[in-house]
Formats: sequence, C-alpha cells, structure tokens
Amino acid sequence: MPKPICLAVDAMGGDFGPEVNVPGSLAAARETGAAIVLVGDEAAIRQELERHPHADVTVDVVHTTQVAGMAEKPSDILRRKKDSSIQVAFRLVRDGQAHGVVTAGNSGAALACGMFILGRIAGVDRPALATILPTLKKPIVLIDVGANADCKPYNLVQFGLMAEVLARYVLDISNPKVGILSIGEEEGKGNALTKEAYSLLKGSSLNFVGNVEGRDVYTGDTDIIVCDGFVGNVALKLSEGLGAALASMLKTELKKSLWSRLGTLIALPAFKRFGKKIDYAEYGGAPILGLNGIAIVCHGASNARAISTALQQAAAFVRKDANTQLVQGLRANTELSLFSRTGRTLAPAGSDAAL
Amino acid sequence: MPKPICLAVDAMGGDFGPEVNVPGSLAAARETGAAIVLVGDEAAIRQELERHPHADVTVDVVHTTQVAGMAEKPSDILRRKKDSSIQVAFRLVRDGQAHGVVTAGNSGAALACGMFILGRIAGVDRPALATILPTLKKPIVLIDVGANADCKPYNLVQFGLMAEVLARYVLDISNPKVGILSIGEEEGKGNALTKEAYSLLKGSSLNFVGNVEGRDVYTGDTDIIVCDGFVGNVALKLSEGLGAALASMLKTELKKSLWSRLGTLIALPAFKRFGKKIDYAEYGGAPILGLNGIAIVCHGASNARAISTALQQAAAFVRKDANTQLVQGLRANTELSLFSRTGRTLAPAGSDAAL
Repeated sequence: MPKPICLAVDAMGGDFGPEVNVPGSLAAARETGAAIVLVGDEAAIRQELERHPHADVTVDVVHTTQVAGMAEKPSDILRRKKDSSIQVAFRLVRDGQAHGVVTAGNSGAALACGMFILGRIAGVDRPALATILPTLKKPIVLIDVGANADCKPYNLVQFGLMAEVLARYVLDISNPKVGILSIGEEEGKGNALTKEAYSLLKGSSLNFVGNVEGRDVYTGDTDIIVCDGFVGNVALKLSEGLGAALASMLKTELKKSLWSRLGTLIALPAFKRFGKKIDYAEYGGAPILGLNGIAIVCHGASNARAISTALQQAAAFVRKDANTQLVQGLRANTELSLFSRTGRTLAPAGSDAAL
Repeated sequence: MPKPICLAVDAMGGDFGPEVNVPGSLAAARETGAAIVLVGDEAAIRQELERHPHADVTVDVVHTTQVAGMAEKPSDILRRKKDSSIQVAFRLVRDGQAHGVVTAGNSGAALACGMFILGRIAGVDRPALATILPTLKKPIVLIDVGANADCKPYNLVQFGLMAEVLARYVLDISNPKVGILSIGEEEGKGNALTKEAYSLLKGSSLNFVGNVEGRDVYTGDTDIIVCDGFVGNVALKLSEGLGAALASMLKTELKKSLWSRLGTLIALPAFKRFGKKIDYAEYGGAPILGLNGIAIVCHGASNARAISTALQQAAAFVRKDANTQLVQGLRANTELSLFSRTGRTLAPAGSDAAL
C-alpha cells in the first residue's frame, strides 16, 4: 500500500453532498496528514475546493457522472450506476488506490458496494455495521445497527468476534466484555434468537457477560453489545430521536422566562461541553466490519465535522492495520467457522443452516 | 359492579413495597374518590397506614401470607404462591370485588395472573403491554413493550386493534394514526415480521400510516406504534437508560464551575418543569390490553407518585368503561378474528397458524 495514508471520500454522499464532504475532508487531511481522493462531480467539487484554501494538504479529484439517491434501491444503484461516486470510491479501495472509503450516502448502497466490490473476509457470513456510542463511562461498540434485519443466532456470535478484534486492536481494550442486547438480565430471558445466541456466546472464547437490558446500554459497563440489525437500528435511531426531543423540550422550558434565559446564558459553556459530549459528529461513523477493506458509513445528515471525524477514524483503522488484524484475528479464531453456516456446522438445531 | 370505583393494589409489589404503595394509594383515593383495597402483609400495611392520615378515604386491607419475588419465575409464582399479594389482587378483580388492579411487582407474574386468573378477551391471541410515552407533541401509545418476545405478523395487527380502542375511548383521539416500528420509512423496509405485518395492517380498517423509524417515535406524529414485545421492551428501557445517562452527563457539566452552578440555580424552575414533563411517574403504568379486566403494571422502581398516577389511570379506565369498550370494540370488529390464529384463517402464508 502506498504511503502516506490515502482515503477515498464519496463527495456526493449524504444530504449535503460536496458542501460538507469537501471541507470535512480538508479538515481530516490537515489533522491526519492523509491524502484524500474526492470522488464525484468534478465541477461541484472544484467549486467547493475554491471556497476552502487547501494548498497545505494533498487532495485529488476523481470525476464521476452519476449520483446514488438516498432513497434508491441498493441493487439498482449497484446494477445501473456503475459510475456513481459511491461505487467508484469503493472500487478505489478494491484496486489499492485508497486504503479506505468514507461515505455519508445511501447506507444500503454502501453495504451492497462493500459486499460486491470489496467482498467478505473468508468465513464471515454477514458483514455488520458497528457503531461507537458515547456512554456514561466510555464509548462502547454496538453491532449490528442495520446491515442485517433478520439474523440467525450464529450471526450474533460472528458480530461479537468481529467487534472483539476491533475493540482490542483499534480501541485498545484488552479483554473486552461482550453482552447481548435483550430483555431481562437472567439467562433464559429474551426472544428465540437471543436465547439461542446466548448459549452459543456462552460456549465461545469471548469474554461474554450475558444479557444487557436496554436501560444498561448507556451505563458503559459492557464494551461490546451484539444484536440483530433491526433491533440495533431501532436502538440507534431511537437514541438519536430521544436525544433531540429531550433537548428540544428542555430548550422550550429554558426559554419560557427571562430568569431561566439568564441562567442558561450563564451556564452556556457547560451546555456546550455537554452538547459536544453527546454529538455523534464527535464519534465518527459506523464501520462495516467483515469486508476486505476499510469502509465507514456516516449519517446522511452529517456535517463537515462528522465527515472529518469519520475520516480520522478511517485513518486510525489504516494506521493500526485494523483490517489485517480483523482478517488474521478471524482466521486465527477457528470459532468463526464453527459459527458459520458455511463452516463445520455447529449451527444450532432448528436454525436454518442451509439458507 | 359496586359503586364507587374500587381498585385493588398489590401492596407488596415493586422494589419498595408498602412504603410507596400505601401513600400512593391514599393519594389516588383522595384524587379520584375511589375505594382502595390494599393486598398484602397486614402488619406491614397497617404500619404504613399509621404513618399517613387516611380518615378521609376508603381503604380496606386484605391480608396475604406470601410475596412474589421480582426475580421469581412467573409460572412458579402462579403455581406455588396462591396466597401472594399479586395473585390475590388479581382474584379480587376476577371475583368482582374490585374494578381493576395495579401492581409494581414482577411484570411476568402480572401477565401470568392476567392470563390465567382474568383470562383473555375472546378472539385475542396475545394480550399485550401498552405504555404511554411522552413525546414532543403529545403522549402516544407504544404496544407491545414486553409481554410477547416473539410475535407473528397477525399479533401486531391485534395489538393495533386493541390500542386503537384504548386511544379512541380512553385517550379521546378520534381517528388514531397507527404505525409500525421499523427501520426505514418506505414499505419494504424492515425485517420479515414487520414487512408481513405491514401488508396486513395496510389491508385492515386501522388508520395505518406505515413504518415509523426509531428517530420519529418521539416526534409524536403517530398516535399508536405497534412492535413485538422484544423490540418494544428494548425501546422502552433504552429510553429510560438514555434519559438517565443524559441527565447525569448534563449535571456533571453544570456542576463543573461556580458560574454554571449559579446559572442552573437561576434556571431551576425550568429544569423542574422539564423533569416533570419527562418523569414516567407522571404517565401512569402499562395497561395489559386484551384481558377480561383492568390491570396496570408499574415500573418496579415506582415511587408513591407513580403508583398514584397508575391508580388514577385505572380509575379513568373504569369510569370510561374501557374494558367493556375493548370487549365490544373487538367483538364488533370482525377483523380481530381474521387476524387470529384461532379465527377463520386470514393468517398470512408462511406464518405458523397452527401454533
């Protein structure tokens, strides 16, 4: 791989396109020293570049003629938009011209590009979206937050194995605690999926700590929480919506009287520190784990700060050689194939091992 | 049924037992004029009654010798603890000695008592726990929040039909909008369960508005949101945990400097109004819908205020004759049996109608 680190950015991705992707990329280039390849409509990108001085950083532009819509079907994008910024950005990684890719575009399309352009790590049945959540104690990993709406029990074990490598080698957590998102703390509480996954996880080499209830996610006591992509996506978006609703309710109350406005003004630095602590823009994007390459998906509504953070995260993945670690970690772990529909079948009775 | 309204309280239920159940009951009796039957250890209850003047309200005590533990198996409680306060309280409703029951005890046991002591409304396959959530616009109904960890698509339709009667007759919402908690707004987004439930709901008489994403739950645009009990329980507890975590993070920041402490002090009434707005104690408990009787389950950590609110909610259910409405509403609605494993089977192909 070439030095320095080179990252591809889907410049057309997200709700705001080049307007946030370009300044976000420049900020990250400055912060990390990485070279950035901006992929998308060259005219639109150059226009943004003109507005932001960038003589001090290495930026390239790769022109593409198509844009993947946020509501378009991933399969359509994959088939009919070969020259979309998201596809081309992923191809740069596949072809060794970039170490990693960041996109705030259609996340379904990002997953499809990951699966079909980069391909899966051997032994991984289902790549998964991981996200890093701020909690009371420290950031934790929640996986899967949307790649797989319907899962088999062994998928959840694979998610745990992948996240464990991430936590160990990228987040520097020595013996990460792995829990399963469920209802009720005791073994035997949960739905059919989590109960079966529970017994598989218990028998695995992971530092499995059992069920984690919804109310304990944000205490930060568990380093990694596994769940199916439906539950994880609901949990992630619910958190986002509740955070926004609470902030709005509090603001309404604080604006109701002159006194409370004054109090708020005096305490403003504290409110700002708080806001920064819980701003997802500070926590980067959601890496897709299980691919032959580094790919990070950002929120569609990302601002420049969020894009920059995700790129810094991608740079850290490259620096720490996260994907090689993942590949090797998974290869060394014979369990991966044990918990695979394609491996020697330890797939639990009743699960659809032939699917 | 006797006049005035009479409500049974599981006085031993919850983390704090008579200490909160007794004063909570007295407050509700005062507020609603209802007579209260406190069920549990008579000595412990009388001791609490002595600490709270109550000459102005009608309170009875029914002595029981057993207590259902919060971590005990519902089936064990049902079989071996015939004289537990929770069982006896439910029997009072079955036997017409009380119009409704409120418990902060073991919620699994409450469901079991509801199913086996009160019984299900004809045509209802799965009674469900509904909860009323504060949102930006108005309170909304989320159902199921924990009674049924694994659901069939038609169960979700039944939840919608039951919640619709509740919303119409108790919450006075004339044509409640019903959505399904899912990932992605478009039809076709979701997991196997929600996709199938989507098409059933679309064909029902309900005012179905489609998928509701996690981030839109708290905007309050949808009056009723249906989901399986696993997802609903995770969503409910996650909201609780996130609310607590955010409050704690904000407090930490506000306490960091003298200035922000001063600002907070000045704005304190606004913080208090906000706290009240989002305090679950203000929103009552979770009614179990689909039973032959009114039963409301409270949070195990309920304080006296929460118990009182739940009892006021129960009194409103009785006053509005909610359960008769539910029984009649469901009987009039031929769809209930259409969406039932026991009725003429419109159960979708592939669903386990014989289970």
